[in-house]
Amino acid sequence: SNSFHLAMMPGEGIGIEVMEAAGAVLGAVEKRFDLSFRQEHIPGGAHHYKETGAILPKDGMERAGRADAILFGAMGWPDIRFPDGTEIAPQLDLRVAFDLYAGVRPIRAIPGTPPVLSDARWKDIDFVIVRESTEGMFASRGKGEIIDDKEARDTQVITRKVTEQLTDFCCGLARRRREARGTPGRVTLVDKANVFRSFAFMRKVFYETAARHEDIEARHHYIDAMALDLVRRPWDFDVLPTENLFGDILSDLGAGLIGGMGFAPSADIGEAHGMFQPSHGTAPDIAGKGIANPTAMILSTAMMLDWLGDRHGSSAARDAARAIELSVDHAFGKMNLRTYDIGGRHGTRDIGSAIAELI
Amino acid sequence: SNSFHLAMMPGEGIGIEVMEAAGAVLGAVEKRFDLSFRQEHIPGGAHHYKETGAILPKDGMERAGRADAILFGAMGWPDIRFPDGTEIAPQLDLRVAFDLYAGVRPIRAIPGTPPVLSDARWKDIDFVIVRESTEGMFASRGKGEIIDDKEARDTQVITRKVTEQLTDFCCGLARRRREARGTPGRVTLVDKANVFRSFAFMRKVFYETAARHEDIEARHHYIDAMALDLVRRPWDFDVLPTENLFGDILSDLGAGLIGGMGFAPSADIGEAHGMFQPSHGTAPDIAGKGIANPTAMILSTAMMLDWLGDRHGSSAARDAARAIELSVDHAFGKMNLRTYDIGGRHGTRDIGSAIAELI
Ligand SMILES: CC(C)[C@H](C(=O)O)[C@@H](O)C(=O)O
Ligand SMILES: CC(C)[C@H](C(=O)O)[C@@H](O)C(=O)O
Repeated sequence: SNSFHLAMMPGEGIGIEVMEAAGAVLGAVEKRFDLSFRQEHIPGGAHHYKETGAILPKDGMERAGRADAILFGAMGWPDIRFPDGTEIAPQLDLRVAFDLYAGVRPIRAIPGTPPVLSDARWKDIDFVIVRESTEGMFASRGKGEIIDDKEARDTQVITRKVTEQLTDFCCGLARRRREARGTPGRVTLVDKANVFRSFAFMRKVFYETAARHEDIEARHHYIDAMALDLVRRPWDFDVLPTENLFGDILSDLGAGLIGGMGFAPSADIGEAHGMFQPSHGTAPDIAGKGIANPTAMILSTAMMLDWLGDRHGSSAARDAARAIELSVDHAFGKMNLRTYDIGGRHGTRDIGSAIAELI
Repeated sequence: SNSFHLAMMPGEGIGIEVMEAAGAVLGAVEKRFDLSFRQEHIPGGAHHYKETGAILPKDGMERAGRADAILFGAMGWPDIRFPDGTEIAPQLDLRVAFDLYAGVRPIRAIPGTPPVLSDARWKDIDFVIVRESTEGMFASRGKGEIIDDKEARDTQVITRKVTEQLTDFCCGLARRRREARGTPGRVTLVDKANVFRSFAFMRKVFYETAARHEDIEARHHYIDAMALDLVRRPWDFDVLPTENLFGDILSDLGAGLIGGMGFAPSADIGEAHGMFQPSHGTAPDIAGKGIANPTAMILSTAMMLDWLGDRHGSSAARDAARAIELSVDHAFGKMNLRTYDIGGRHGTRDIGSAIAELI
């Protein structure tokens, strides 16, 4: 099928603005390729919570689950919180509700953007962090204990089942990347197995599972060493599965390497659902000014089309994904478009319409 | 007093080699300043465990505790592990045994070394991570549960008492840094209080405690945003207290920013004891070749002298610390010494004796 039902969840802050840019790109895709989208808008977020007492509409979760894919902007607002002081983050609930265990966060240097590292190999940066997104430390969300105002605890949980799923997913991803772009087909688990039993367990299950993928090279790396090596030699890595909180940290580090969160797309993938969103948040400080960088949102839209294409055997969707990526590279690499976050003067709409036109 | 009793724990691998360089520097310090050191050698580490079944000699901990300060090389070896698969790491036991809650890890760009970031402000990098080193996630070391080979758990613990101590320590450090080098006197807690109750608790206690230091500016930052900002604008930070595992990760990231672990010293400080060691490990791949960079070890020795100077009112020790730091800067910045890790040909002894001579 070449007709897809999309749940559009712009959220709030710059989520709304970058989602408009994605909308422009989707419009261009419909015109150029044999594709059509039914877009269903679902509100939600911190402001929604403030107004209604719920973070999503009552049937919001169900409606999102019925769509072929979820396109998500950003939700959360510093001043609006749950009574326990933690943040309103419906994206976390969606990850858990739909078992979106694989948080795919590609880190690729966009041609033409200013190099962050002084080493000339900077331009070769092209790796993917796969953040496990349903358990790990985040299993403790909302469950931490505070004892007598004297001591607090949170417990990390790692299961065999999810680690197996994550490993299989990563091996498949490394294989597809090797076919599409000649990367080495290497999966490196990031853990802290030298100190913690839960990570030693994760590593054991990882190797057991990876052994079933003979064409894939399986390795491991400590989280601290990885934080160092992503600064020293990020061009050496391919696919990096990791625990939830570690993935949260490393994917922001990775975004820093390529010019910031405005360039970092993501996909949250489960067996039955996929949600696609930029790695950034609502950015209250620049919201409403039209200066947010929509590249991450637009590249997330490409990831969605690629996933839909694979899943539904739609080569039109896969081609559209490829066209979006090439247009982004062309906009920055050849047309010298420069967003505000890298010192330029091209706003959210400029980028959205430039890429729509290129398509 | 100007006479100090030092527990020297070289450990294994390059720990032994860099400790020799530190010994050369201490010798030079004794000649130039009115200081004398009684050096007591204490073995330990993974090889010691393999040979004796214990990671330290029976009275090793006690002897280390009686010294005025502990100078530590590196311990641990990939192939030699505890039965549960975790690493032999006596440094972790020492941190807990002596309540060394403040893991001070300064990150400063050394003049003359190759810039890692392309931004010209790279040379202004000068911040300190203070890794809480007795609890946090590491409270679970050796205690993680594995249930039925299906699920594994580790629990993080954050206490009011240690958070207060850590905060007071950091405020004092920010104040001393402001006096000595004109930094802003700013302490930024790194946490994940938006998702976890234990971190929300840590943040609350941090602000309560910091409020008692009116001259110090207290702030907070999320761990993920900090991983990004340490890549984007590390020159903006001053003193960064954080949970144990977060500090482990960020301090390696920080070391990456200044050319690697060979340039990253550390001090583990408690109310009654201080241990000083390079942030790096035993580096089995280069051990025995004489090519390890001893700068981190030598700068850790300077941190030890500075701490002894403050604690015992010895201006000679403080002056010696200053002299070591200036000599390091001179060796790299003016004499063009270049260690192997940054593409040069100066070995461990070359650097040790060059700095000893400069003193
Ligand atoms: C908003 C926040 C709770 C979220 C997370 O920690 O997962 C964000 O940082 C992310 O990376 O998606
Ligand atoms: C050797 C290892 C257990 C140790 C740690 O994780 O604390 C090291 O990485 C460090 O930073 O001192």
